[in-house]
Amino acid sequence: MIRPAPSIDALPAATPFIGPERLMREQGRGELVRLGANESAFGPSPIAVAAMRAEMDRVAWYGDPDSLELRDALAIKHGCSPENVLVGAGIDDVMGLAVRGWVAPGGLAVASRGTYPTFEYHVRGYGGRVERVDYRDDGTPDYQALIARAHAVKPAIVYLANPDNPSGAFAPRKQIERFYAALPDDTLFVLDEAYADFVEDEELLAPTFDDRLFRMRTFSKAYGMAGARIGYVLTTLQNIGTLQKIRLQYGVNRNAQIGALACLRDDEFKRRVVTETARGRDEYAALARELELAVLPSRTNFVCIDVGDATRATRIVAELLKRGVWIRKPGAPPLDRCIRASVGTAPMRAAFAQALRDVLVEVPA
Amino acid sequence: MIRPAPSIDALPAATPFIGPERLMREQGRGELVRLGANESAFGPSPIAVAAMRAEMDRVAWYGDPDSLELRDALAIKHGCSPENVLVGAGIDDVMGLAVRGWVAPGGLAVASRGTYPTFEYHVRGYGGRVERVDYRDDGTPDYQALIARAHAVKPAIVYLANPDNPSGAFAPRKQIERFYAALPDDTLFVLDEAYADFVEDEELLAPTFDDRLFRMRTFSKAYGMAGARIGYVLTTLQNIGTLQKIRLQYGVNRNAQIGALACLRDDEFKRRVVTETARGRDEYAALARELELAVLPSRTNFVCIDVGDATRATRIVAELLKRGVWIRKPGAPPLDRCIRASVGTAPMRAAFAQALRDVLVEVPA
Repeated sequence: MIRPAPSIDALPAATPFIGPERLMREQGRGELVRLGANESAFGPSPIAVAAMRAEMDRVAWYGDPDSLELRDALAIKHGCSPENVLVGAGIDDVMGLAVRGWVAPGGLAVASRGTYPTFEYHVRGYGGRVERVDYRDDGTPDYQALIARAHAVKPAIVYLANPDNPSGAFAPRKQIERFYAALPDDTLFVLDEAYADFVEDEELLAPTFDDRLFRMRTFSKAYGMAGARIGYVLTTLQNIGTLQKIRLQYGVNRNAQIGALACLRDDEFKRRVVTETARGRDEYAALARELELAVLPSRTNFVCIDVGDATRATRIVAELLKRGVWIRKPGAPPLDRCIRASVGTAPMRAAFAQALRDVLVEVPA
Repeated sequence: MIRPAPSIDALPAATPFIGPERLMREQGRGELVRLGANESAFGPSPIAVAAMRAEMDRVAWYGDPDSLELRDALAIKHGCSPENVLVGAGIDDVMGLAVRGWVAPGGLAVASRGTYPTFEYHVRGYGGRVERVDYRDDGTPDYQALIARAHAVKPAIVYLANPDNPSGAFAPRKQIERFYAALPDDTLFVLDEAYADFVEDEELLAPTFDDRLFRMRTFSKAYGMAGARIGYVLTTLQNIGTLQKIRLQYGVNRNAQIGALACLRDDEFKRRVVTETARGRDEYAALARELELAVLPSRTNFVCIDVGDATRATRIVAELLKRGVWIRKPGAPPLDRCIRASVGTAPMRAAFAQALRDVLVEVPA
């Protein structure tokens, strides 16, 4: 009789996400307007696509386990040493390493209730527990309550996404500096900056290398490389040394490394994506005004629209799916009264707008 | 003061592999004849390359977290249900899940001393320990001793690679059936079939779905997709359910999924790779005869050449590197008296042969 390790056996069977491909299969649909996973509708830089296509013949070679060239380029971007950078298969991967590295079995983490679910998935998966702090009713993380809880329970990790997911809220530099300074000395601050490329560098925490800070970035959002699975950590040499003991040495796709390096050489493309994303957010805000709904302020590539209550939000998501528009919604109060739509291209936004108008008639407040 | 989790803090800082890119940088070289990592010198199927190039524009989309289409195709290939297949970022990834899933902290695994190092890396990384069984002096795994050790220590996992790495040895179907049947009832048999595509299906264990069997395959070797990072597990629904609780939901590159699916549609290409690989092994055997060295029988895409002792083997590897030829050697006795070279293309094999002839003069027995 084969039994899993007891701590794994005890885990629930829940899956954090259902993919759109499964929904398409269940619905018998060949395609969906993909606005559910905050992918970039504007794709990656054509320079990155060309670089990846050119190297495709060499996919028989493993990628460089040290990502030397990419780390050199990232060190220049962030004003640090390549030794301060560790590349992984997206933030999900490096976040898992953070949890595995610092949260011992039975250990604690603190995070907002309903924030990016993969964080809690990892903490539970490695035998820890998340102490959850409610979002404020306006949908912003409750920074003061997170600090207070951290001092009360002394967690191994405090997790915060900034800009935040799923709310879209953004805390500017000074506020994050104060938040970070106020955390307990022996707590690792895991700062998820997946959406940081949508704000200006000057608005973000300055380059800071301190064992207490574990900062994560990705090529999945503004750089349009979600399918490539590539992201990285910025932290101290000591923390990187811990990750080196447990990371998958050959975990990153070679083509993803090549594409990411090329993305960094096309800042102009990224700027256009950021501009077009802001335009799309404005359009969603105008749509919400037309429909007499409120939107949450967002500095990301998605917008939460407040539809009044969680039941209605769930029904709207289901009805949109029947019309071929795939979005998601936050799972926990108070944000669960919202639907969350990624910024698409202009035609995708128009399809979403028309479908939402139709659906709201059928799903009244 | 930030401290990692105690079990992680206690791990050694060792890295299982040094990549050729780091060696090139250290040696100031722009390229190497890559024969160190058993990559396919024949690349992936042109059909797979074309499929991946065609989809590169859509790399902004996450891959399907369930790999539905690929699992359907793999189920047909292996005569099982798609529910018996779990896709991950290469065997390294799914092997890590096996260890995490079944080896509890303080738990045991049994494996040959000096076999694929990533297995032990994972076991140590998850707080377990590997009981090692020496290879026989002829370089083959000591199947009887592995069984005996398993009965003596009742490990959570017995790991065996077949065909074996680093020896190249292959145990045919009947022998693996007997091995598997002889293991303790409560031990998971983790069968690494990374090189199984180099032998005929009839020579391999029949499709078997039993909670005691965890069979791993990859697209990295005969299919020439190492850089894509994609492999899979064949096991029971119950075991897959355990993996589902802990795997990275979005861990596989979208393009890798597309390429793998296309590979399965080009069996003709794979057959040519297998034929050319056998030709290359014969050439290495002839080279060894010319140099009055023995080779270990291999059914993989690499060959171990016995150069007499470990010190000489280490020096030969270093001298070959100075000449731009990158190979590796097994790390533990008795195989450490060998050098191990992957089968390259005809020009790569010729470059290796000439460099080896030159080096042997400088590094006499």
